[in-house]
Amino acid sequence: MEYEEPKFFHVMQYAAAADGDVIDMVSGNPDWEPPAALREALRDYADLTPDAFQYPPSEGLRELRESIAARREVDPDRVVVTNGTGEANYLAMARAFDRGAGDEALLTDPVYPYYPGKVSMLGGEATLVPTERDGSLDVAALDAAASEATALIALNTPNNPTGAVYDIETVRAVVSIADRVDAVVLVDEVYDHFDLSGRFESALTLDSDRVIVTSGFSKSMAITGFRVGYGVFPDDHVDAAKTRHMLVNVAGARPSQYAVTHALAETNPGYYAEAREMLADRVDAFTDALDAAGAEYTRPEGAFYVLARFDGFPGTMANVKRLIDEVGVAGMPGEAFGTARDDWIRFALVTPRAAEAAERLADRFGC
Amino acid sequence: MEYEEPKFFHVMQYAAAADGDVIDMVSGNPDWEPPAALREALRDYADLTPDAFQYPPSEGLRELRESIAARREVDPDRVVVTNGTGEANYLAMARAFDRGAGDEALLTDPVYPYYPGKVSMLGGEATLVPTERDGSLDVAALDAAASEATALIALNTPNNPTGAVYDIETVRAVVSIADRVDAVVLVDEVYDHFDLSGRFESALTLDSDRVIVTSGFSKSMAITGFRVGYGVFPDDHVDAAKTRHMLVNVAGARPSQYAVTHALAETNPGYYAEAREMLADRVDAFTDALDAAGAEYTRPEGAFYVLARFDGFPGTMANVKRLIDEVGVAGMPGEAFGTARDDWIRFALVTPRAAEAAERLADRFGC
Repeated sequence: MEYEEPKFFHVMQYAAAADGDVIDMVSGNPDWEPPAALREALRDYADLTPDAFQYPPSEGLRELRESIAARREVDPDRVVVTNGTGEANYLAMARAFDRGAGDEALLTDPVYPYYPGKVSMLGGEATLVPTERDGSLDVAALDAAASEATALIALNTPNNPTGAVYDIETVRAVVSIADRVDAVVLVDEVYDHFDLSGRFESALTLDSDRVIVTSGFSKSMAITGFRVGYGVFPDDHVDAAKTRHMLVNVAGARPSQYAVTHALAETNPGYYAEAREMLADRVDAFTDALDAAGAEYTRPEGAFYVLARFDGFPGTMANVKRLIDEVGVAGMPGEAFGTARDDWIRFALVTPRAAEAAERLADRFGC
Repeated sequence: MEYEEPKFFHVMQYAAAADGDVIDMVSGNPDWEPPAALREALRDYADLTPDAFQYPPSEGLRELRESIAARREVDPDRVVVTNGTGEANYLAMARAFDRGAGDEALLTDPVYPYYPGKVSMLGGEATLVPTERDGSLDVAALDAAASEATALIALNTPNNPTGAVYDIETVRAVVSIADRVDAVVLVDEVYDHFDLSGRFESALTLDSDRVIVTSGFSKSMAITGFRVGYGVFPDDHVDAAKTRHMLVNVAGARPSQYAVTHALAETNPGYYAEAREMLADRVDAFTDALDAAGAEYTRPEGAFYVLARFDGFPGTMANVKRLIDEVGVAGMPGEAFGTARDDWIRFALVTPRAAEAAERLADRFGC
């Protein structure tokens, strides 16, 4: 297993050590308030009797699994609560390779950097398939790349880093490819609450026995540190996922699961809508300034990232550091996300200073 | 990967569904109070700003790693905070097999049932090596079993289920065997606070570059549901462990880590001593009754389990169920722990009714 230290950390450390004032747009940590009910539930939990501090069921607190299942309209037996969406993706990928149906994973390019790392750790081979310039899926390219060796096709929608929201018919076409080559399709929907397009539909609506959907509460409740995610597995795969989850982690953290359970039940849709509207405003302000800077960019349909390209200033690690030092804005080099956008820079809109950052970029690059 | 549902669950469900009053001595969930500082820290955490709710460092909160390192007298860089001791054991075993130095794991018999499950999931082959009748290590048998194929030797001290505390010189001899065959030695010390013998010494004192020590706070702070454990890895292995931890779990749960960090700093030794003394009293009461019942048993030197054998009543699953129905005491069948104690029954002393359970057993089996 070979894996370099994620470039995230490298950039964040560089930004933190910089002399001047730097606006951090590197990581995907929400900067807004979690649901009030989550804080209240944590306080309540602190006063419970010792039995409430012991192992939750390995697959997660029953009430939490039932809430997830109700929202997702699936049988609760298909839901495994995990240590964040990251573990759910790991379980899904492991299942794809454990079936004995190949060892290749088709990933999109640009790609969320943990995916190829996980594939490699699990003994698989990652093949990057470029998306369209606007970030949408290139179904023909995926079809051409798929073969008997393909065990897994992994999608992320709304997408990090492109902001694309995949059309459900496009996802259906990918599932057909998987049918042809007997592969599992992992659809990571962790940004499902941040659909700015109004077009997002979960891959669970396809009702396919080869689709595993993962998600979590890290982004939707602004609690990346709580580590509560989940996978919805087809009947044929759920037992294997539960077994691996138990053998790796025994169970997830109960205080976190307890707090999320109550926050799910007691938080009204306005909470999620408010975060979404705030992000939409940040997208507007940031892309207006990118226009003024003469930059090319993808306007996100979902999630909370903007990929931008400045003429004559490719998004290498060296240039990202120059941007930190000279402009006071920290982004992520495109080369962290595969090869297809290696002259772009990703900016995460999870700071109240997004508009200010955009003005700094406009000052530097504008005419 | 094949793995049957752990027998724990099967027995617990049977006991819960039984008609009469059943004293639960199945699982290893502490029944006593967590440290007061842990509850207080959770309350404080609930009021922190949103940034405190985001990802902790992947390898754990710095302050927590430094506390662990100080207590363990190792460099903090060697400490990886995990999602419970279970994940730490998984990381250690994965590292042993990833080295390309064999695929066999030598495990003791009786064995903690998760160990062979993890070995098998990781593609390794488990070989069970019987311990002595009192639960102490049979070094000659381990030496005879070790070969070029051996990648891992896994020990657990104080031991679940035998209650044995291994002499540090015996552990040193096992490390010498590992030296001979180029294997990693995993020493799971999760019961280190429950040494009733006064003889326990951590394998870290051996200062060996092939020893990985794991532990956690599930038992010592009575919080199995918080999922805070750790591994102390030799320099050559720690980066690989951190990488796998990041790719599987990203990070552990921050509310749990925050609470444990404060509880570690603010809990005085009296808390741990009180739990230990209570357990010692339970051991006395329980073994007195076993004497009255004419049972053979191992008096635990550490941890909180008693293995007992009743003449003419082997510890099969069927007999464990009879004990639940006819006597109102639920234990674990010895066959759950490998083959060496399959006519014994394990009783976990994590109930205030341990003495009452013992009396029921004495009534049933005594003359």
